[in-house]
Amino acid sequence: MNNIKHLIDPMDLSIMELEDILGLANDIMKNPKEYSHLLSGKILATLFYEPSTRTRFSFEAAMMKLGGNILGFSEPNSSSVSKGESLSDTIKIVSTYADIIAMRHPKEGSAKVATIYSSVPIINAGDGGHQHPTQTLTDLLTIKSLKENLEGHVIGICGDLKFGRTVHSLIKAISRYKNNKIILISPEELTIPQYIRDEILIKENIPFIEVERLEDVIDKLDILYMTRVQKERFFNEEDYIRLKDSYILDQSKMSKAKKDMIVLHPLPRVNEIAQEVDKDPRACYFKQAEYGMYVRMALILKLLEVR
Amino acid sequence: MNNIKHLIDPMDLSIMELEDILGLANDIMKNPKEYSHLLSGKILATLFYEPSTRTRFSFEAAMMKLGGNILGFSEPNSSSVSKGESLSDTIKIVSTYADIIAMRHPKEGSAKVATIYSSVPIINAGDGGHQHPTQTLTDLLTIKSLKENLEGHVIGICGDLKFGRTVHSLIKAISRYKNNKIILISPEELTIPQYIRDEILIKENIPFIEVERLEDVIDKLDILYMTRVQKERFFNEEDYIRLKDSYILDQSKMSKAKKDMIVLHPLPRVNEIAQEVDKDPRACYFKQAEYGMYVRMALILKLLEVR
Amino acid sequence: MNNIKHLIDPMDLSIMELEDILGLANDIMKNPKEYSHLLSGKILATLFYEPSTRTRFSFEAAMMKLGGNILGFSEPNSSSVSKGESLSDTIKIVSTYADIIAMRHPKEGSAKVATIYSSVPIINAGDGGHQHPTQTLTDLLTIKSLKENLEGHVIGICGDLKFGRTVHSLIKAISRYKNNKIILISPEELTIPQYIRDEILIKENIPFIEVERLEDVIDKLDILYMTRVQKERFFNEEDYIRLKDSYILDQSKMSKAKKDMIVLHPLPRVNEIAQEVDKDPRACYFKQAEYGMYVRMALILKLLEVR
Repeated sequence: MNNIKHLIDPMDLSIMELEDILGLANDIMKNPKEYSHLLSGKILATLFYEPSTRTRFSFEAAMMKLGGNILGFSEPNSSSVSKGESLSDTIKIVSTYADIIAMRHPKEGSAKVATIYSSVPIINAGDGGHQHPTQTLTDLLTIKSLKENLEGHVIGICGDLKFGRTVHSLIKAISRYKNNKIILISPEELTIPQYIRDEILIKENIPFIEVERLEDVIDKLDILYMTRVQKERFFNEEDYIRLKDSYILDQSKMSKAKKDMIVLHPLPRVNEIAQEVDKDPRACYFKQAEYGMYVRMALILKLLEVR
Repeated sequence: MNNIKHLIDPMDLSIMELEDILGLANDIMKNPKEYSHLLSGKILATLFYEPSTRTRFSFEAAMMKLGGNILGFSEPNSSSVSKGESLSDTIKIVSTYADIIAMRHPKEGSAKVATIYSSVPIINAGDGGHQHPTQTLTDLLTIKSLKENLEGHVIGICGDLKFGRTVHSLIKAISRYKNNKIILISPEELTIPQYIRDEILIKENIPFIEVERLEDVIDKLDILYMTRVQKERFFNEEDYIRLKDSYILDQSKMSKAKKDMIVLHPLPRVNEIAQEVDKDPRACYFKQAEYGMYVRMALILKLLEVR
Repeated sequence: MNNIKHLIDPMDLSIMELEDILGLANDIMKNPKEYSHLLSGKILATLFYEPSTRTRFSFEAAMMKLGGNILGFSEPNSSSVSKGESLSDTIKIVSTYADIIAMRHPKEGSAKVATIYSSVPIINAGDGGHQHPTQTLTDLLTIKSLKENLEGHVIGICGDLKFGRTVHSLIKAISRYKNNKIILISPEELTIPQYIRDEILIKENIPFIEVERLEDVIDKLDILYMTRVQKERFFNEEDYIRLKDSYILDQSKMSKAKKDMIVLHPLPRVNEIAQEVDKDPRACYFKQAEYGMYVRMALILKLLEVR
């Protein structure tokens, strides 16, 4: 359609572009003051058709720390949507006011649709169960920053691997890097979809195994990526009772893990990581949220072609 | 009461003041950077007692592009209103925090009431079905910018002319300029109110005709101002079926129009302009939304007496 | 836990710290321009788990007038709270984005809990019926500014003295200063709690009397602090009818008061002060709201150790 760059799917980015963003994020972390006025006078519109405080705050803080301004709504009730305005009209109008748009929408594909009508870059901040590319960027920056690079790790991914979009994106993204091994930890009902297994892991020759219990493999992991398992997802009560504790990370399990393993989580967490783990230096999920802000700063700068 | 300037009714402005605002808006469009820090440290309060994302965004973007800050709420639920605080008390307090207030309220006359209690300028951003003066300023700036001046045009106004407040204000405003002809296009049930016909059009000697079908007159128009016709407004189903297509602008009708006609719409639109028209260079309603931001920038500067 | 300063309870502050804040607020009022860029690049998060426009606006305006930015939500519906995220996790994450947090929460003690998890200063902007320390700072700054000092006054406190948290805090705060006399004016059902009488007034040797009718004592007051009395609080209809007019301040009562008495109210008011009183120069409650903004500016600067 046009030459404007957007970020809709994490796989939209070439490895080169990805490295560029991660490198820029790293530089921002080291020299935040050099970036603090770059977007003075620019406007980021945050269009949240479903609420997500954490993601919205992360984008807004990122924009503010670049010197820019925010225009937006945090839920559809306070928007013209309730008057029946189409997404395409909203995007056309907002893109005359704002320099860049971050949007979250319950409907899959809506961010992609928005790019057709927008005269400014669109960042997909989550479209239903589909994509959430800045979470994937966050995960990659966190791993790269805390483990030095994105290669050669044993990565455990634990929880609901069937429906978890962040997990699918992470597997796709990490499969582009060398020498990683993946251990998939989930109840049988919630293993990764067949297309991820076939088209990503097998096709890209990524060594992987699938197991049911976290305690059986935690000692082998360099990185543990936790997600939630909801009770409703289980086929029967019996399985749930037998397995539920395997998907709760506590200090007892942590005691079996490597000294330099890192624990990540896309947040919000409910009870899948016990609060006692928060004090463990290997618990990096709050640090991860902070990286999320820096990677969004880098992304905004790249899409606006300021850096 | 005092010497503070407000904008409550579009007719509050003399032609001179109006020209001044339109001229300033024009200069801002040409040299936006010269204006980008003028209101640094100033605060605009956007008090939206009913939601209107487009209008709110337009005001907020205007203020930001002048270097100012925003304080506000986008719906009454998140405001003290739910605690029973009177409008007068809210205005008194907010005017100690903010330098200027834009307010939208479902009740007619409420913006006028607010001026009694405010120590800073009030801009009426819509009070029920009553007034919406910045929409009228937007319409005038759009016509002036795209058709060079506000005189000598054949202006078609189409849709619900009975209840449409933007239409009433536009007729009043345009009747102050010379040599315009107005063609009013509406179903019989929705023709303009008698007082507009008598006290504006006839009194000011504005040539006008009233017709029922857009296709009969579209070839004569320099400007076509579209608004929506809601099914509920018709007296009977039969009339509705007979006429509804006359109030939907599509490429078939556009093919009969002049090559330099411009199509305007206050937005949001539902289906009264087919999406296929958006690509026609004569479709200027999104451009119009952009002019809306610039005219609000000019208005804010004038009311604050910065320019 | 750590060395970060918070403000949870007004009594957290020593008299010295309090004087420091009031002095700084006074200087800001005199030289606002000198402070207008001090917090450029800093972020205040306003986390309002229950709506309070006036308090939120006061904090946000304060931050903006120091050159800072705002991140926040104005009601829990548009926050991650609805997804079940714990307060502790929200605070941990927000404190990685923001430099300081103002939070209002319906649950008593929640601001205190937040300090455990926050890496930045927390300001309690109201926790249930418990504390609202910036209101107390506002009251003190108002009295000091309008009556020159905080000593030697006859202070009438009128209305619901049983449940009104601002009243309890004010009594505690003012009892630290010399030579004040307090006249408590309330229906018998709504007198101050025993612990305030015993542990503050009697223990600190503050002269005080308790009366039922405002008109009996208004001529003796230097300061009249009004609060609302809700009908539901009365034991019986008869008492309510007999007393209700005693808790409504009107010009008839004002005519008996000293020429230099000042009337304060934490706002919002409903009908406990008749609108006719607003024009009386002794009506200082809107001025008080303005002082509230300046004292918050001073507090933010102190907590961030900028001044």
